[in-house]
Amino acid sequence: MKTSLDCMPCVVRQALETARQVSADPAVHEQIIREVLDWVSRIDLEQSPPHMAQQIHRRLREITGNNDPYRPAKEHQNRMALSLVPELRAKIEASPDPLVVAVRLAIAGNVIDMGVNGKISTEQLQASIHRAMTDPFVGDHQGVRQAMTAARRILFLADNAGEIVLDRLLVEALGPDRVTVAVRGAPIINDATLFDAQAAGLVDITAVMDNGSDAPGTLLDDCSDAFKQRFFDSDLIIAKGQGNFETLSDAPYPIIFLFQAKCPVIAEHAQVPLGSHVWTWFQPATFSQKA
Amino acid sequence: MKTSLDCMPCVVRQALETARQVSADPAVHEQIIREVLDWVSRIDLEQSPPHMAQQIHRRLREITGNNDPYRPAKEHQNRMALSLVPELRAKIEASPDPLVVAVRLAIAGNVIDMGVNGKISTEQLQASIHRAMTDPFVGDHQGVRQAMTAARRILFLADNAGEIVLDRLLVEALGPDRVTVAVRGAPIINDATLFDAQAAGLVDITAVMDNGSDAPGTLLDDCSDAFKQRFFDSDLIIAKGQGNFETLSDAPYPIIFLFQAKCPVIAEHAQVPLGSHVWTWFQPATFSQKA
Repeated sequence: MKTSLDCMPCVVRQALETARQVSADPAVHEQIIREVLDWVSRIDLEQSPPHMAQQIHRRLREITGNNDPYRPAKEHQNRMALSLVPELRAKIEASPDPLVVAVRLAIAGNVIDMGVNGKISTEQLQASIHRAMTDPFVGDHQGVRQAMTAARRILFLADNAGEIVLDRLLVEALGPDRVTVAVRGAPIINDATLFDAQAAGLVDITAVMDNGSDAPGTLLDDCSDAFKQRFFDSDLIIAKGQGNFETLSDAPYPIIFLFQAKCPVIAEHAQVPLGSHVWTWFQPATFSQKA
Repeated sequence: MKTSLDCMPCVVRQALETARQVSADPAVHEQIIREVLDWVSRIDLEQSPPHMAQQIHRRLREITGNNDPYRPAKEHQNRMALSLVPELRAKIEASPDPLVVAVRLAIAGNVIDMGVNGKISTEQLQASIHRAMTDPFVGDHQGVRQAMTAARRILFLADNAGEIVLDRLLVEALGPDRVTVAVRGAPIINDATLFDAQAAGLVDITAVMDNGSDAPGTLLDDCSDAFKQRFFDSDLIIAKGQGNFETLSDAPYPIIFLFQAKCPVIAEHAQVPLGSHVWTWFQPATFSQKA
């Protein structure tokens, strides 16, 4: 999807929040926000918002000299989610429909999104899980289940740290043998990298690769050849989170999107109410959304 | 007060909202937001936020060719407030402490602020009145009452359309003979001009002047000589609204500020909780806030 005019003030606000997280120096905050304002004034609205975020966070890392400013936050998020795993795994095992419960929990984990909420607490994560277990889901429930059951080669595009721990439960439910999990190729906000896939224990149960890109989404042109090869060889892509939806929602591939619609622009693009838990399915044959 | 880094994304968001109110053309919205982003990237943070808003709204009027885009909104707000006047006047007359009730109502009227909330309804105004009548007020209650009672020449700085109708009730309670009401010198957002002072019936009961400036606050250097003369000749200034507080809070004059702290940056500067109903008093002898 393209960048909306509404993204522009939001990006400026995010940049200021991030600046304050990565530096304690007000002069650095001012330098960053002035650069971002100037930069956003000239951006190409045809590009997706994650493309914009990629450029801004590259510059933030350059200015602060910190290649992974969210590392402590990501480790905290992984630990927070790991502490809930035994209880959540029991919930899945006790259910007559484990796959659907695992999908719900994976979407619940999408609340851990520092692009939206810089400080997520265990209580907020538990509230998200409670909501995800009870709220109606928006999407093609039956089509998604069929596709997940029938697929032979699944590429699972992870989103954030912490969230990836809950994704592990979905990978287990899908059957790890037919799944490859892809993470970002370099640190960007709190998006999951190989480090987090390892923390989540995913590397012990399935194949994990990085996508070669530092965008907070999946910009195919920016990804490695190895990733693209795996992407096109898969008969089903499961894409977690808003960033992957923003970058792939118009792509003519068999992609199931699982995310919380936390942003009004994305909710409008997905044609769902703000706050929805979404499993949306784009059919390759028609390229039309069935949700 | 100076402009905070937090004002920068907020100003960009306001500019986009305003662009959409003054034009239906997405190309105009994009032109405006790109210009504002570029402009905000270079602003002088030593200036107050209303100075920034003055520049932006001048440019908005230039681009849209509309000198008073908020005229219909302002007329609606005046009518809305006028419809409540009989009931509110009865409330004041029935009170053992009419001056304090009139102050409370004048602060309630400060909810009509299009820089903060573009679409205020009669229900929201009534809710604000209810809250203003019951909430504790932040400030020097007794000092304010004494100053209001003792003053011989009061300059009342009005803020917004609609709100000015409720201000009339306070002017009546103060005794119109010793009051001059000043409005903005030209249209800016929904700030009250002579047109609104007339709609509120103020011109029939007291002296009204404009301040010669199109800033949404009181930038003394930008005001007319006649206004400044009146300002310095008065022994009490009553300044309504955030914009007048932002531009005069550091000025060493006997000013009572009446406003709702709707913005976190202003609440912090005033050292009050966000959402407070404030009557704050700066003493000329000490230049220190007594709240």
